[in-house]
Amino acid sequence: MSVHHERLTIGTDQRETTVDVTARVRAAVTRSKVREGICVVNIAHTTAAVFVNENADPDVQRDLLHQLAKLVPKDADYRHAEGNAAAHIKAVLVGNDVALSIHEGELVLGTWQGIYFAEFDGPRERSATVTVIGD
Amino acid sequence: MSVHHERLTIGTDQRETTVDVTARVRAAVTRSKVREGICVVNIAHTTAAVFVNENADPDVQRDLLHQLAKLVPKDADYRHAEGNAAAHIKAVLVGNDVALSIHEGELVLGTWQGIYFAEFDGPRERSATVTVIGD
Amino acid sequence: MSVHHERLTIGTDQRETTVDVTARVRAAVTRSKVREGICVVNIAHTTAAVFVNENADPDVQRDLLHQLAKLVPKDADYRHAEGNAAAHIKAVLVGNDVALSIHEGELVLGTWQGIYFAEFDGPRERSATVTVIGD
Repeated sequence: MSVHHERLTIGTDQRETTVDVTARVRAAVTRSKVREGICVVNIAHTTAAVFVNENADPDVQRDLLHQLAKLVPKDADYRHAEGNAAAHIKAVLVGNDVALSIHEGELVLGTWQGIYFAEFDGPRERSATVTVIGD
Repeated sequence: MSVHHERLTIGTDQRETTVDVTARVRAAVTRSKVREGICVVNIAHTTAAVFVNENADPDVQRDLLHQLAKLVPKDADYRHAEGNAAAHIKAVLVGNDVALSIHEGELVLGTWQGIYFAEFDGPRERSATVTVIGD
Repeated sequence: MSVHHERLTIGTDQRETTVDVTARVRAAVTRSKVREGICVVNIAHTTAAVFVNENADPDVQRDLLHQLAKLVPKDADYRHAEGNAAAHIKAVLVGNDVALSIHEGELVLGTWQGIYFAEFDGPRERSATVTVIGD
């Protein structure tokens, strides 16, 4: 059994955007040489998130950010004084980690699935950790 | 240490429904022979999800789907042209994976907890992966 | 490779509140003696949740609970007769588990990140499981 860690840095260029990190997570799995196991991706921030969803039509990502902004408006009766309370709340709703399966040396993802970093308070330089555990 | 994978197929008969897969995940854990470890369940789709919640009163599942439909209406100003943007957004909110603990050969679940597959764009034939890692 | 389990008990004193459990999860990781691996925290209840978010300004926690209460009102046209349907729905949205990375014997968390237990139907005595797997 081995454990392999990699740190990803992700630059975002808008206040709210998603970044497809699938290829980078796949590359970390390959470098880990783990054939069977699991892979966990964690975001090191509290106004960003990670999720798995459609990798084909970019409108899905746009619709997601648009609907999240309706559910959690940027400006409301928040008390947090930094102006980014909505970003914190969205980060909790979307989630700080994904856990994925590795089989025969490859991430197990459906045909239309990609792994996305979600930026809710950019633009910023962000980081995430990829942890691979297995044989 | 060993790693065990199983693929579940789940047929859904409505556009939106939940399916209790607890017994099937438990059976996969038993077959894995892992006594101490963790179990990850992943959905291979982008308009479906997995979650842990109440297994006693079916009204909880109904209320969940009902409230999600209020938060993310089926028809709104979405750009994704396939008519299922809401299903993608719900899948992100509920999540694509659950990670569970295994102790003494059994999934660690509270008395009222079950593992549910959530269908947001059915009816369809769906699949999920169960990965068990441990001793 | 080793697997280490600990059970946390968490007393809550309000109907809705969050409790910072970071130090207790860190202590479980230290006791596990795992240097490289992953840590999964699971809640044993269906009206409570766990998440990672800001540990500095308590207003972030207040804003989160406040916005969740707007999205999922305590009283609406729910069918679940126990009066806590909203708590179940919030638990699904926030999530029942977090998976974290362990590196050099320490949880990998960003500067502003803490691990929070979320109570949506208290006050109650609650429990959670911490599972550590690795070398």
